[in-house]
Amino acid sequence: MIYLDNNATTPLSERVKEAIVTHLDKYGNPSSIYKIGAQNKQCIDHARQSVATLINADAKNIIFTGCATESNNAVINSCVDLHPDKTTHIVTTKVEHSAILETVKYYQKYRNVDVTFLDVDSKGRINPNDLKAALRGDTTLVSVMLVNNEIGNIYDVKKLCSIVKEYNPTILFHTDATQAVGKMKVNVEDLNVDFLTLSGHKFYAPKGVGALYMRNSKLFLPYMHGGHQERGLRAGTENILSIVAMGTAADEAIAFTEYDRIAELRDYIENMVLKLVKPARVIGDIEHRICNTSCVLFEQYNGVDICDLINRLPEAERVCISSGSACNSIALAPSHVMEAMDIQRIPIRISLNKYTSKDELDTFLRSLMKIRKILGQKH
Amino acid sequence: MIYLDNNATTPLSERVKEAIVTHLDKYGNPSSIYKIGAQNKQCIDHARQSVATLINADAKNIIFTGCATESNNAVINSCVDLHPDKTTHIVTTKVEHSAILETVKYYQKYRNVDVTFLDVDSKGRINPNDLKAALRGDTTLVSVMLVNNEIGNIYDVKKLCSIVKEYNPTILFHTDATQAVGKMKVNVEDLNVDFLTLSGHKFYAPKGVGALYMRNSKLFLPYMHGGHQERGLRAGTENILSIVAMGTAADEAIAFTEYDRIAELRDYIENMVLKLVKPARVIGDIEHRICNTSCVLFEQYNGVDICDLINRLPEAERVCISSGSACNSIALAPSHVMEAMDIQRIPIRISLNKYTSKDELDTFLRSLMKIRKILGQKH
Repeated sequence: MIYLDNNATTPLSERVKEAIVTHLDKYGNPSSIYKIGAQNKQCIDHARQSVATLINADAKNIIFTGCATESNNAVINSCVDLHPDKTTHIVTTKVEHSAILETVKYYQKYRNVDVTFLDVDSKGRINPNDLKAALRGDTTLVSVMLVNNEIGNIYDVKKLCSIVKEYNPTILFHTDATQAVGKMKVNVEDLNVDFLTLSGHKFYAPKGVGALYMRNSKLFLPYMHGGHQERGLRAGTENILSIVAMGTAADEAIAFTEYDRIAELRDYIENMVLKLVKPARVIGDIEHRICNTSCVLFEQYNGVDICDLINRLPEAERVCISSGSACNSIALAPSHVMEAMDIQRIPIRISLNKYTSKDELDTFLRSLMKIRKILGQKH
Repeated sequence: MIYLDNNATTPLSERVKEAIVTHLDKYGNPSSIYKIGAQNKQCIDHARQSVATLINADAKNIIFTGCATESNNAVINSCVDLHPDKTTHIVTTKVEHSAILETVKYYQKYRNVDVTFLDVDSKGRINPNDLKAALRGDTTLVSVMLVNNEIGNIYDVKKLCSIVKEYNPTILFHTDATQAVGKMKVNVEDLNVDFLTLSGHKFYAPKGVGALYMRNSKLFLPYMHGGHQERGLRAGTENILSIVAMGTAADEAIAFTEYDRIAELRDYIENMVLKLVKPARVIGDIEHRICNTSCVLFEQYNGVDICDLINRLPEAERVCISSGSACNSIALAPSHVMEAMDIQRIPIRISLNKYTSKDELDTFLRSLMKIRKILGQKH
């Protein structure tokens, strides 16, 4: 099986698997006073330090959550509840992950929040002037992703944040860095954001654990209430197995530097695909793109779901690949990201991981040639 | 090590551990179309059926969450958001878990929700007439736990729910069954509740996964927004390892029937403790108590934290035991449950699991005798 859908989720690394297996018998409740509880508390603190180091944060500014979706929901909820007596204005973009888009839409509907969705151009780029123009006296939060999950664009969050802070330093800035962490250096001090979301399963930890960085916990109202876990900022018995796994994955991500090697492989497969299936074009901001992602549109095969066709090949030739976000995968229409770029068709997204080899990419090419043959007979 | 704090958390069962290890390499995103994604979707559906069977529910009425705290928060949030234009009145009790108490207090403060906290008597019992008297025209939710985590009281949720439904069938009834599932038969049809919360790590699954039963999803607004996971009722990439583990634990819990055996062991240790450390008394409703829990107050040692003393014994004599909820364990004052019963001191809570042996209980007795000796010298 060839797996080229790592923006949907990544396999567990060997060290992460070992960490989980080693921890299976360490079941103490981290909030308990006795040894097996206290030991788990230490493991969580250790994992917290690893995640903090990964994004150049102070460990006290990191809380663990159930997933990136929870982190995103928590930031928006906090921002709305912090201003219970007045209307809140949130600025975000049309290309955010649905964990931001659907959440702000919910608060629009149920909590009278006003939201501005920034447009993008045909390459998925945000115009900083649009952000500047969108800011208002009642704006309380701006949320712009660091890396887009479908097209891989890296947004200039540092610059966008500085625009916001220049306008009004009390406006909070959140970035969803789910698709960035583990694939590029992420530095919260440099970005100067107030909140940053990350997810374990995008960098070789299991699904079911995320984290939220917050510059100042006094500007955050907890989303989940109950116990005093996470210094009172996120209730619920700690997800110890997954937290330990995420800490281990963070340690590996800190040591990992081979972004250029991944980008070379990405460029190789992208160029081969473009040659193979003409006419085709790459979607997104090629100059500012995360190392592992390529999003390609086949001009010729309008209305043809290439991913679905690949999935129908004989087992050995199948490649796990998608047309975009797994969180939207039921939809057969172009995603909101494509719509925002005024693209009415469904692309294929190739997303590599640190284990992807050239051999695997060549297998994918052979599958794609087979598909082309089938389509050639039909078109 | 002797572990008698199973209401805080339980060890993983051997089958649960096997399920996790077996699943470590099955990393596909359950929302993806290709085989390793679809296989994980099937695993989730299988686990959902197991959890549903455990509480006699229809699988379509179960969603997986990150923990019981999330399930509880979700129900309260939904109930408040469902009535955005009017004041909402919630009825709950003074002995609920903090995941209910702190949540309704948050909504009191930030969302203008009116809350009635029902009193309990000296045995922690709820008077059904108090509930009847508390119901109002604007009451939208009643939340009463099925089993108390500190004293083990089983509340007559079936009767309390019928009182509410007789008064006004549109009032929603939620029960937090976190401490019940796996230790007694739980039947949502018999209870007739609208919502029921359960947690994996209280019955031999890992921490970091819970579930929420809902009778009618049309009466529920999602708490976490984003992807279409869990039929649009709970966004976020599915916590596949933990969900598979919880399904396995549910299968085991369905087959488990030895509640009486556990109750006998509980009665054995309770009687021995009462004989050993006079004067002492059992707290709670002894006639209606979950099989595994004993909460004992030592009249003599006022202000002495027995659990802490046990924790200071030499390693071999230490027993993992607590004075109450792990979610409140930092507090050295009597818990809110003790306060509600007008008890100003800190008890010890002994909570067994299905693996607890008489030998282990005897080790605990020896440790307790040692403590008594130490205290005897001081008192």
